[in-house]
Amino acid sequence: MPARLKFIVAYDGGPFAGWQSQARGDTIQDRLERAFREVGGQRVRVHGAGRTDAGVHALAQCAHVDLADRNFPKEKWTAALNAFLPPTIRVLRCNYVDPKFHARFSAKGKVYRYRISNAPILSPFEKGRAWHVIRPLDFDTMAEAAAHFIGKHDFARFTANRGTPAQDTVRTIHDARARRAGSLITIEFDGDGFLYKMARLMSGALVQCGLGKIRARQIVDLLRLQNAKQRVVAPAEGLFLVRVRY
Amino acid sequence: MPARLKFIVAYDGGPFAGWQSQARGDTIQDRLERAFREVGGQRVRVHGAGRTDAGVHALAQCAHVDLADRNFPKEKWTAALNAFLPPTIRVLRCNYVDPKFHARFSAKGKVYRYRISNAPILSPFEKGRAWHVIRPLDFDTMAEAAAHFIGKHDFARFTANRGTPAQDTVRTIHDARARRAGSLITIEFDGDGFLYKMARLMSGALVQCGLGKIRARQIVDLLRLQNAKQRVVAPAEGLFLVRVRY
Repeated sequence: MPARLKFIVAYDGGPFAGWQSQARGDTIQDRLERAFREVGGQRVRVHGAGRTDAGVHALAQCAHVDLADRNFPKEKWTAALNAFLPPTIRVLRCNYVDPKFHARFSAKGKVYRYRISNAPILSPFEKGRAWHVIRPLDFDTMAEAAAHFIGKHDFARFTANRGTPAQDTVRTIHDARARRAGSLITIEFDGDGFLYKMARLMSGALVQCGLGKIRARQIVDLLRLQNAKQRVVAPAEGLFLVRVRY
Repeated sequence: MPARLKFIVAYDGGPFAGWQSQARGDTIQDRLERAFREVGGQRVRVHGAGRTDAGVHALAQCAHVDLADRNFPKEKWTAALNAFLPPTIRVLRCNYVDPKFHARFSAKGKVYRYRISNAPILSPFEKGRAWHVIRPLDFDTMAEAAAHFIGKHDFARFTANRGTPAQDTVRTIHDARARRAGSLITIEFDGDGFLYKMARLMSGALVQCGLGKIRARQIVDLLRLQNAKQRVVAPAEGLFLVRVRY
């Protein structure tokens, strides 16, 4: 009897050309599909909750595959897949689920984290895992500005064109908050959905606030105005998909 | 007038064959000496506070070099050296110091940190930066055992032979403590000096305690007994030189 397997996967996006399979480049989806083929001899299509760009990391991305049967226990899938995956991609757990569950369409929301190192010199241990902003950032302004993202807004100004037709660009941000630990600033966004490059554009806007280039309450104007000249896309390496809510 | 430059350097030990120059292998010392040559055109000898093994990391190793003059300001040294170093090695700051200062002989003590991931599956972000111990560790026993290292002891049983002649093996550990954050266990040792592989042998003993193979108070016996069969050297990748005290 066919079976749907849901799994949680963490990855360091650094070495990969993003999540989604593409003609050129080594992607997370490719690696996962290859591991399923090597373990079970089955060609499967991996459906992720969302596509992360090249360099973007995940602490707990969620995905599913359809298998021919349930003969292989879920714990064995975890160990077997990891045996065929590089240490930069780790399947954390697997579960057989109802076939009505869909990693992408059943998702109720996502949490993204953006990490910024504001140290004068980037630690070797933050390389590839944070945006290194050398000029001093005003943390309080960033924290105040982050709160302005909370609520239901049209984020049309906070997405990049991916060549797809016009879509509904209204999203609800349940929480947006900045934290500081030493020279590390972390921004966390919890929302019902994120448009293409939305988390990175929001993070870029908050850094602009921290540098004094735009004021905290101007975030609201940025959401409305057609003026895109102040748009800054924060680099991929600082972004982490923290979890998918269902 | 000749000048002595002291500097603090952080490095990810993963890609290197340790600190000290050697006939074969790419070492941190080699990279630093090459950077000094490329920046100042001077062949210098880098003297570190201590040699870290292949794979061991440093958050703030200390070293010094002797230069022909003080013509190049200290801030410029930092930026110039980093321009010639890989991102896995970062000079954090430089200072001209009295020629009586010696990175190794003036050191009053060091702080080492050992990181252990006790998660069932090693996060891609801990790969190369923690010892992955899969079997569950009893944290309380480890914390209790760590305290037994505090004080002045003969650490002859907690060092590996490096082919050097017999030496004084008495060292004072000012503090040794274990911390836990989720599945990550961190042990920190603050001592007046550390013998070859001492921090890794101490960490290995604490993991043996956490696995129930030796009891917490047996640490004291291990310090005295000639029985070396329970010795476990914790892997290099979990060890961080945190700072050098002067």
